[in-house]
Amino acid sequence: MADNKRPIGIFDSGVGGLTVYRALHERLPNERFIYLGDTARVPYGTKSMATVERYALENSEFLASRGIKMLVVACNTASALALPTIREKIGLDVAGVIGPGGRKAVEITKNKEKPRIGVIATEATVISNAYFEAIRRASETAEVMQKGCPLFVPLAEENWTREPETFSIAAKYLADLKEFRPDALVLGCTHYPILKDVIQQTIGPDVKLVDSGEATADEVADLLFDKGLANLEPVTASRRLCDDMDHFYVTDAAERFSRVAERFLGIPPKRLEAIEVYGGDELRQKPDR
Amino acid sequence: MADNKRPIGIFDSGVGGLTVYRALHERLPNERFIYLGDTARVPYGTKSMATVERYALENSEFLASRGIKMLVVACNTASALALPTIREKIGLDVAGVIGPGGRKAVEITKNKEKPRIGVIATEATVISNAYFEAIRRASETAEVMQKGCPLFVPLAEENWTREPETFSIAAKYLADLKEFRPDALVLGCTHYPILKDVIQQTIGPDVKLVDSGEATADEVADLLFDKGLANLEPVTASRRLCDDMDHFYVTDAAERFSRVAERFLGIPPKRLEAIEVYGGDELRQKPDR
Repeated sequence: MADNKRPIGIFDSGVGGLTVYRALHERLPNERFIYLGDTARVPYGTKSMATVERYALENSEFLASRGIKMLVVACNTASALALPTIREKIGLDVAGVIGPGGRKAVEITKNKEKPRIGVIATEATVISNAYFEAIRRASETAEVMQKGCPLFVPLAEENWTREPETFSIAAKYLADLKEFRPDALVLGCTHYPILKDVIQQTIGPDVKLVDSGEATADEVADLLFDKGLANLEPVTASRRLCDDMDHFYVTDAAERFSRVAERFLGIPPKRLEAIEVYGGDELRQKPDR
Repeated sequence: MADNKRPIGIFDSGVGGLTVYRALHERLPNERFIYLGDTARVPYGTKSMATVERYALENSEFLASRGIKMLVVACNTASALALPTIREKIGLDVAGVIGPGGRKAVEITKNKEKPRIGVIATEATVISNAYFEAIRRASETAEVMQKGCPLFVPLAEENWTREPETFSIAAKYLADLKEFRPDALVLGCTHYPILKDVIQQTIGPDVKLVDSGEATADEVADLLFDKGLANLEPVTASRRLCDDMDHFYVTDAAERFSRVAERFLGIPPKRLEAIEVYGGDELRQKPDR
């Protein structure tokens, strides 16, 4: 297949990366996507660098074997911990979400001389300091405050987007950040856009939220056009989210993925298959169950 | 080594099973334990039966290879989904936590004729109906109400044992159960004993909480004495929780495990090693990182 007709690969530790898929789909309506959610080993945010690297590499190899033209690492934790290893091992262009998120935060800040940027993310992403470094590369003078918000992932998966408990937990997590008075707050985990309303209300209306997924979609679009990899022919007039032009794989529990995907995107994936993970080997396809 | 000098194997999806280890340690001070926490693949409670079975079997094979005299499946989800498979494949006595928990609930109920028993557990455990069946085997007339409480695990791991948000979430999860007016409420996940105070206050003082770990320790003690496998010589005068007579393994993130273990048990494990999980193969030892 001509290089620019090939699909774009996306992987995430689970269902959260669908927010990145949605952003890519909106920004690049001519492209097809293959999404892999590693639901057998989710979450990554509490695991070690060695383990996240291994999982990320196995996912990347599976997608590479499906004939993708480039790879998007939608998972913030995998982007923070495993991007150098993936780039080294996979002979494809690879985009993570941390760089685009960090650059976007600097771009939209109102204090150009001394941007004040907050980052909320998983434990592992915060410890890696990847957002701090990405932001500092974009602005040497930026002041950065990071905060791990471990309960946000289960709250988003439970779809508790308006519950008073979610507001109360958000108030606790964001108290120091609110005092820090950032211009921009990076949603440094793919689950967090689900809680956007709670986070915006808690941090205050003057703080701009940065959805790394949207920032990544912009950069992926630029990269495809720069490299001549973009598909210039519209694929179909009636292209929709989750239609049968996009292919979804999970490593476990396809039914649960489908249910949560419907909550996240308003529609479940039409083509969804379960595959098996075997450490060290290629991921293998298996019938759904 | 003489059979009754050999250690008892315990595995859990992660750190939660330490509540079962503590109960076993208290009940059986002459015994030594080998504990495996599958922290690279935690949690099990949102995963499919096929995947939980595979993980449980790999864990059991690893422990069997360390020369244990019997195996305790401390994880409720693995007990609910994988016990028959483990028993079939491992040539050892195997105790789960569901049977003992269910029997204990029937035993302590005040309504002997029609016990009313509540069960709180992970999604996967509830869907499996394993507690319902265990309770019904112990009392044909028992009325059972089950409720999945997915946020309790992350709340326990965060150690939010007194936070108002935890009380508020508990009130929401337990509302129907409170109306059901059970005699006894089974804590059907190893993490839940950490939230015992919140759960007791929420469900009311007249409901007896059943800690499956304690019930399991009693049954394991009976089994060891019945089979002549109990170690009758006191191992040492100064035996302590987490001392160097017990050996702990994790499949990832030993440092985090140690930290959470200290919160759960008051003391971190003295002997803790990280091993690697390779699907299909035996689990392999590796240097900690």
